[in-house]
Amino acid sequence: MGQDDRSIHIQSFDLVATGQPLVRSERRIDLHSLRSNEALVRIAGCGVCHTDLGFVYDGVRTGSPLPLTLGHEISGVVEAAGAELAELLHQQVVVPAVIPCGRCTLCVSGRGSICRKQIFPGSDVAGGFASHIVVPGHSLCPVDDTRLKQSGLALADLAVLADAVSTPYQAVVRSGLRKEDTVVVVGVGGVGGFAVQIAAALGGRVIALDVSEERLAAIAPYGAQHCICTKGRDPMEVRKEVSGYVKQQGMNPLEWKIFECSGHPGGQSQAFALLTFGAFLSVVGYTLEKVTVRLSNLMAFDATAQGNWGCLPSLYPDALRLILDGKIALLPFIERRPLSSINDTMHELHQGLLRKRPVLIPNFS
Amino acid sequence: MGQDDRSIHIQSFDLVATGQPLVRSERRIDLHSLRSNEALVRIAGCGVCHTDLGFVYDGVRTGSPLPLTLGHEISGVVEAAGAELAELLHQQVVVPAVIPCGRCTLCVSGRGSICRKQIFPGSDVAGGFASHIVVPGHSLCPVDDTRLKQSGLALADLAVLADAVSTPYQAVVRSGLRKEDTVVVVGVGGVGGFAVQIAAALGGRVIALDVSEERLAAIAPYGAQHCICTKGRDPMEVRKEVSGYVKQQGMNPLEWKIFECSGHPGGQSQAFALLTFGAFLSVVGYTLEKVTVRLSNLMAFDATAQGNWGCLPSLYPDALRLILDGKIALLPFIERRPLSSINDTMHELHQGLLRKRPVLIPNFS
Repeated sequence: MGQDDRSIHIQSFDLVATGQPLVRSERRIDLHSLRSNEALVRIAGCGVCHTDLGFVYDGVRTGSPLPLTLGHEISGVVEAAGAELAELLHQQVVVPAVIPCGRCTLCVSGRGSICRKQIFPGSDVAGGFASHIVVPGHSLCPVDDTRLKQSGLALADLAVLADAVSTPYQAVVRSGLRKEDTVVVVGVGGVGGFAVQIAAALGGRVIALDVSEERLAAIAPYGAQHCICTKGRDPMEVRKEVSGYVKQQGMNPLEWKIFECSGHPGGQSQAFALLTFGAFLSVVGYTLEKVTVRLSNLMAFDATAQGNWGCLPSLYPDALRLILDGKIALLPFIERRPLSSINDTMHELHQGLLRKRPVLIPNFS
Repeated sequence: MGQDDRSIHIQSFDLVATGQPLVRSERRIDLHSLRSNEALVRIAGCGVCHTDLGFVYDGVRTGSPLPLTLGHEISGVVEAAGAELAELLHQQVVVPAVIPCGRCTLCVSGRGSICRKQIFPGSDVAGGFASHIVVPGHSLCPVDDTRLKQSGLALADLAVLADAVSTPYQAVVRSGLRKEDTVVVVGVGGVGGFAVQIAAALGGRVIALDVSEERLAAIAPYGAQHCICTKGRDPMEVRKEVSGYVKQQGMNPLEWKIFECSGHPGGQSQAFALLTFGAFLSVVGYTLEKVTVRLSNLMAFDATAQGNWGCLPSLYPDALRLILDGKIALLPFIERRPLSSINDTMHELHQGLLRKRPVLIPNFS
């Protein structure tokens, strides 16, 4: 808290200009200025996502102008709360990466993912590479302290629920996955690896595809019953291999659930080539590049390709439960680092030097 | 009926080899050979579809080997029926273009569109360019005689329900169309024109796109509240024009229902370029050609692209009702011709000389 208990200093690392190192910054917030539906969250951890790299290195435009605090995978503790949110005070929470307004017609009808008033922290408003963040409180996901302690995880670790876990979770839920369904995950990095774990936890029989043997080896013990390295291979040849495996194992030859998590044109082409009768292809990864596909295959296979944007806050508690129940392993796939290392961490991630998703822990003096 | 009332002659026009005129043919059927679930339908009319042109001119492979009777848009009267189907005798019916087995796990769970035992008349078995057809009887769509007479239509006209009407009908139903939704139909030919009428009948506000001013003029009075000729235009420019119109008219700027019915790469590119937040793009038309698209737009817009294969028999009665209620106009869009004109008709259709969908009426002597 600040000098008179009514204001605090928020310390942060901000992007000032594309390609430049983030700059340490500070601003004061008068807690009386918190709206009745706003919460001030003291940040425990903030994950670093490829979306952040896009903002820093590729000039992808943020929703609000620079300078801006990036970071949208946030966990923390509610330190101050508006009048509507008194019950959240001192609560441990995860801050959803996409925060729909919760009140418009779309939100009320369950289509909050396309709410036009939604807030994406670290793009539309100041984000999580900071000591604190101010967010609308209605969508915060509470974390039970007893369950957290039993899980052996730190609150900071749960930051990755906010995007890396929840986004593929929504994609898997939307796919209508049933037990014993054939699942193929294309790209098992930061997001796709969790897609593998989630699909396996919900009963799917999961085949993992990636261009990296190393990433495949890492996910193999966590729900991928079969791994195929696709590096340099023709997508139709890979399709044949997947089909052969499915047949040999007596798995469902129809209605494959395919999750494109690589966000690369090669992965997207591979994922599209995997369409089977009644397939559901979830486009989870993002790339600005285009791909050339036979769109009519959707018709011939009576198949569906669906994009997945974020995750509705209402689904967070279920995804969190999978983590706290130990059905999704976090620790083998994340690495805690001090927030002060942010520029080095961004650089290493951009260079492809990191094998685990970094979670930055605020360490302001 | 044949000589001894137990056998009949089925007369037909058959495809013997790609690119060759259809050949008049005849075969005898012993009615005792009808299975308990089979019906013999005396054909009233059979529509000619672009799929037939693909078989005749482009070497698209049929499910059964040549020679084969083509034709999958069939209406007629049940003239003989197996033991399970006694109540269908003398019934006027439409024969679905895709006939799922009705018994497998997929069929029972409502996924008959991908039933692996489904039958496509005129490809998997002898089709409708004939005097009679033998089909599984469980999926036939009965036509009430009184309602038919009140409608001013002939039974032959209802042949087009079997594909040209029912296929976009299923696509519209699956889109989850609600009243006042913004609908864009790309390609308003034989199938797309009915997509316009169906979407309008179900309360959508429909914008029609086509490269042909003539086709647009034909559909304008039948549910297209706005028409845009896209010939030679950039898809993103057309998108802007559609958006401008939607805004000006106070229509829903989100969740557009887009129906790609052209079956051409240009139409598919246009349809994909129309994606909005929460859009549903139905791929109804088919082409072997590929298109280059930014697949990630599905993710950025939280949008869905879904292929549509045929129409479940269970949906036929609802689509038929729209026709008999006069909510879908058939007569301005179809043209009755004698079946003996089939080779000329195929040729004219292939040359793009026909403005209306031909329905061939058997006229064997």
